Amino acid sequence: MQPSSSLFPTIRLKPKGDARKIRHGFPWVYANELVTDRRTKALAPGSVALLEDAERQPLALVAVNPESRIFARVLEPASAGLPEGGPDHAWFAARVSRALRLRETLFDAPFYRLVHAEADGLPGVIIDRFGDTAVVQPNAAWADARIEVLSAALVEVTGVTNVLKSASGRARGLEGLDDVSKVLAGTAPEAPVPVQMNGATYMADLTGGQKTGLFYDQRPNHAFAARLAKGARVLDVFSHVGGFGLACLAGGAESALAVDGSAPALELASAGAHAMGASARFQTRQGDAFAQLEALNAEGASFEVVICDPPAFAPSKQALEAGLRAYERVARLAAPLVAEGGYLGLCSCSHAADLGKFRAASIRGIGRAGRDAALIHTGYAGPDHPMHPQLAESGYLKALFFRL
Amino acid sequence: MQPSSSLFPTIRLKPKGDARKIRHGFPWVYANELVTDRRTKALAPGSVALLEDAERQPLALVAVNPESRIFARVLEPASAGLPEGGPDHAWFAARVSRALRLRETLFDAPFYRLVHAEADGLPGVIIDRFGDTAVVQPNAAWADARIEVLSAALVEVTGVTNVLKSASGRARGLEGLDDVSKVLAGTAPEAPVPVQMNGATYMADLTGGQKTGLFYDQRPNHAFAARLAKGARVLDVFSHVGGFGLACLAGGAESALAVDGSAPALELASAGAHAMGASARFQTRQGDAFAQLEALNAEGASFEVVICDPPAFAPSKQALEAGLRAYERVARLAAPLVAEGGYLGLCSCSHAADLGKFRAASIRGIGRAGRDAALIHTGYAGPDHPMHPQLAESGYLKALFFRL
Repeated sequence: MQPSSSLFPTIRLKPKGDARKIRHGFPWVYANELVTDRRTKALAPGSVALLEDAERQPLALVAVNPESRIFARVLEPASAGLPEGGPDHAWFAARVSRALRLRETLFDAPFYRLVHAEADGLPGVIIDRFGDTAVVQPNAAWADARIEVLSAALVEVTGVTNVLKSASGRARGLEGLDDVSKVLAGTAPEAPVPVQMNGATYMADLTGGQKTGLFYDQRPNHAFAARLAKGARVLDVFSHVGGFGLACLAGGAESALAVDGSAPALELASAGAHAMGASARFQTRQGDAFAQLEALNAEGASFEVVICDPPAFAPSKQALEAGLRAYERVARLAAPLVAEGGYLGLCSCSHAADLGKFRAASIRGIGRAGRDAALIHTGYAGPDHPMHPQLAESGYLKALFFRL
Repeated sequence: MQPSSSLFPTIRLKPKGDARKIRHGFPWVYANELVTDRRTKALAPGSVALLEDAERQPLALVAVNPESRIFARVLEPASAGLPEGGPDHAWFAARVSRALRLRETLFDAPFYRLVHAEADGLPGVIIDRFGDTAVVQPNAAWADARIEVLSAALVEVTGVTNVLKSASGRARGLEGLDDVSKVLAGTAPEAPVPVQMNGATYMADLTGGQKTGLFYDQRPNHAFAARLAKGARVLDVFSHVGGFGLACLAGGAESALAVDGSAPALELASAGAHAMGASARFQTRQGDAFAQLEALNAEGASFEVVICDPPAFAPSKQALEAGLRAYERVARLAAPLVAEGGYLGLCSCSHAADLGKFRAASIRGIGRAGRDAALIHTGYAGPDHPMHPQLAESGYLKALFFRL
């Protein structure tokens, strides 16, 4: 169906606005690219509008939010059309269904990121699936306003019984959204949910928020580390709920030591090791990771495999220089703990630190520790985290594996 | 042992030469960075020298070749030392042994790239292992001159019975080396050698030269394609000896069609399919790949998985623009052959086309074909192709997987 300008309010690019960018698939329009009159500014956050170029030719149906720097997000290019009234049950069901087909191709069990925002045609929406429970992050106003419809479509398409809304995403603040999480369908699992990945068992606390949740993005990098771990003593720094450490135990590691600042996260990691029957090979140390790295150096500790998966040290361009220094410091403190011929895995989940900069900081840190290294693997987030082609520069997760 | 300047001739950086770069591990010295007097120019290609900074402080033991743009390649930093007389049996054995440990950690069977040049401490030397046969490419003068010692060390450390010298590497011309291949130990296998990767069987013709050899670098990308291939009709363009197509058959593809310009390569591919008991699901079309892509479009052909793994279209900076246009053309011709919701894998083995440029060309080509895409995976050469940290920018192999 061709979009009809009579059904939706219109917003228009400035004469100098780049209509070609939108026609080539760029999914966002910033406020400063639009003619913003009083009417435009008064549009309700989350409402649907027709985006036109300066010559009033339709470009796309978009979801608008005058309160966000990203004023409009493309829902459908002009050539495709939208159901009257905007995204409805059938529209959501079609998007979720398409996303589900990719994950069912990739994975044997229903534990994955089901929807990864723009690349899955649902701008700003993240959905993680844990068996019969789905956790939805509606991190844009248009989706937050339609969360009940989205939830119903999700239940219908996937057959999940529980749908939880998580309002913990940092992006919600930028969209002017609240931080109130709730249960949209079924019930919230009271106990942590066991999740199998790469032969390991992880415990996912789906109601405890980000600090003790579970991220699927590192799955292929966990798998690579596990290949290096047979018979190895493994150190997993910034371990969270045991990500790399438990995968290495599943890969045949002699032992794994998990270091993290969060006691609840380490408790979940220990519960995972217990579920794997690997408690005897698993230890934890709670505390500041840098302090623990320094302590291990002072003790003369040595491991065949060391992995550091810190939080985003460079979440913004402003934080880039300080962030790169922090990545270099991690590498400098971790490298001396690697036995000769052993392996060092260094990860970054910073948008602002691109691969080249992160790699250079890591290599500098290893060099300052007086170690030689060869780079044997570069990994990204797994394929259940697809990237929109026009946003591919922003691939946030990088994992570098060195042999020392 | 400290290197002794009395044992080797010396070469010296110019006063403006960047000694720090070498101290930080950069493995090459270009001719224009050195004080080149008559004596320096008269050094025998492949001889060992002591590299000093402008203040006559030792930097490294290097292998020199006055005939090459890369005048000197670092064998050992100054702090490490070398046996008197240069690289000997024990020195080669130690390097090969260290390289072997990495591969034995990574792989269950002895089929891999055993030595990947600078990153494995053997500058310019490539060694591929096919069970009890090793194929050595000594693509630098120092290694070519010591090939017998290297071969003996290789036999001792790995236990291979056959060692073949391949002189087909393009880099040999730049080093002033001949193109005469020969048998260094044992015998050359007369029949193609079956190689198992990702559950597929490939036939490697170890004496027929590059055109029908076997490359290990795409192994992880073959594996990723195979995950997408269950029940799929697969098109493998620039298939060579069946790389992606046979991996997809092993992954459960309904059928695979291999397209290549080389009839001998396709014969080996067919022999691989036969060895897998998959002949009934395997077809080939010999001819120019672009012409075949156009013919398939004209026939209205459709596949759930399409992979294009062309030769290096941009082998040099001069060829970059034309190369990127060729990559865009591949994408534009391949995308229409992908069924809705299917997958397109696009590869580049061009040094000059970095990831960003190759990705942009691919996305442009897909867009020109009128298709939307999400990028689900970016892969590189496998971990038996480690990269020297100071040369990491030059990672040549890129594989992009899109969902259309």
